[in-house]
Amino acid sequence: MTSLERVTILGTGLIGTSIGLALRRHGIRVALEDRDASAVETAVRLEAGTVLTDDIPPADLVVVCVPPANVGQVLASGQRRALGRYYTDVASVKKAIIESALRSGCDLSTYVPGHPMSGSERSGPIAARAELFVDRTCTFCPTSSTLPTALDCALACSQLVGAIPCVIDTDAHDRATALMSHTPHLVASALAALFADSDSVTLSLIGRGLLDVTRIAAGNPVLWTEILTLNAYAVADVVDVVATDLAAAAAELRVLSDGIDRSTKKVVDLLVRGNNGIANFVIILNGRLRMSMVKPEVVS
Amino acid sequence: MTSLERVTILGTGLIGTSIGLALRRHGIRVALEDRDASAVETAVRLEAGTVLTDDIPPADLVVVCVPPANVGQVLASGQRRALGRYYTDVASVKKAIIESALRSGCDLSTYVPGHPMSGSERSGPIAARAELFVDRTCTFCPTSSTLPTALDCALACSQLVGAIPCVIDTDAHDRATALMSHTPHLVASALAALFADSDSVTLSLIGRGLLDVTRIAAGNPVLWTEILTLNAYAVADVVDVVATDLAAAAAELRVLSDGIDRSTKKVVDLLVRGNNGIANFVIILNGRLRMSMVKPEVVS
Repeated sequence: MTSLERVTILGTGLIGTSIGLALRRHGIRVALEDRDASAVETAVRLEAGTVLTDDIPPADLVVVCVPPANVGQVLASGQRRALGRYYTDVASVKKAIIESALRSGCDLSTYVPGHPMSGSERSGPIAARAELFVDRTCTFCPTSSTLPTALDCALACSQLVGAIPCVIDTDAHDRATALMSHTPHLVASALAALFADSDSVTLSLIGRGLLDVTRIAAGNPVLWTEILTLNAYAVADVVDVVATDLAAAAAELRVLSDGIDRSTKKVVDLLVRGNNGIANFVIILNGRLRMSMVKPEVVS
Repeated sequence: MTSLERVTILGTGLIGTSIGLALRRHGIRVALEDRDASAVETAVRLEAGTVLTDDIPPADLVVVCVPPANVGQVLASGQRRALGRYYTDVASVKKAIIESALRSGCDLSTYVPGHPMSGSERSGPIAARAELFVDRTCTFCPTSSTLPTALDCALACSQLVGAIPCVIDTDAHDRATALMSHTPHLVASALAALFADSDSVTLSLIGRGLLDVTRIAAGNPVLWTEILTLNAYAVADVVDVVATDLAAAAAELRVLSDGIDRSTKKVVDLLVRGNNGIANFVIILNGRLRMSMVKPEVVS
């Protein structure tokens, strides 16, 4: 049984504050720190934990919840300050983060690279919710240096916040998030960008479909450029597939419309493959529904 | 005051049946016809109207709710059968439909090309809802031949079902739906298609963001190929913009990641333009919210 009594959260944005809120429900002592004093103040007022002070004993787990480009540095500093026994983070890229942790001189044995798959287009502590992670996958990518006890501790924490933990290879994780999150973000942005200079007549015609397709494009552009750059090759490969499929569909539409050649089937094939993707999602969602009806006991 | 006592609906799928349900709430006599007997039966059972028979007098308005490629033919046949005084349709492309109506020998003076902007990824009469059109824009593209009284009649019908009517030029309509509906459908399909052959581990990581972005890709591929082909040039132009933006973003990500050149700003600019598009949507939605709080009287 992994003991989890004290958790320290570095970075009290949406994710950090939500973790604090979820852990407080289980009576875990949560200490909070952020370079933005008002963010910590808000998180404390929401009862996500108390301010981290020097007299607080080292935590069982330190969760680094800062923007991806700062994780290596903040982790290294946390380890130098001996803030806890084990460490994890929440960034949606893992290979680049592990490399940056190495460059920053971190001790990889106590560090469990992590990623709760529960983003939101909202941000900041004020958007935090204790339920943010419930029934969402939380992936961990332990390195060859990661201590098994560190992994156990991170797994226990993810289960306490209601997530479904999943251990996955670093490259597989980064490819999966390129598919699941990073490419959809860029594609949604490219669609929403079509309306950056639209007149009010055009805008008056918008419906729910377009709003749903573009919703995630509301994310912070600087943070997202950072995320996309840290996972550049995996994202670029997937984005190229989408761009190529779309360009081919556009070319075929012109040909179909002219009635020159009705033998090519790229558009209908793309739509059928889209249907098949959606059908796969439905299978997974139905599975989750069944799982949530027969809730397994938390094993840690 | 336009009198609207009898409406005949040709095609009892999602849209036709929903119109019937909405009109029945106002006591309008609704007659229904579909080449699929079971679709009519379902629509009648849902109380969207009664079966169209020879002894029913001509309607004030006939609403053609069949797939876009069949509108011209069904409209021509309805006019030959003298089913009503005025006619409208609900297809999401207008220029190609008007041309097809002309080719089918329709009388354009009694025909008001229409398009309620209230699609759904669901289909068939069983998915119908009387509220489908409430506070949604319903566009009309009268031709130079359209009688003003015909337009008045179609406007009155759209207001009865709760929609916000809007008269718009045919080309502007087709460009707007290419932007608002047709391109998002193709883009959502290209994203969902990435998961057509995914393994269960990858699929287990899906979250709400991806589900929202891809939801509309569940539409019928054959029907959607037809719609996209009928609006081919307008759609292809917009899809090319998206494909070009995405390809450029992918190329820049590789360069940014290699640290070769940090001076280009295509990715962050695309994300900022995406933010601006979303900001425009929010302005429109807030406007609609205000409108729905101070409901104007229906003027017809």
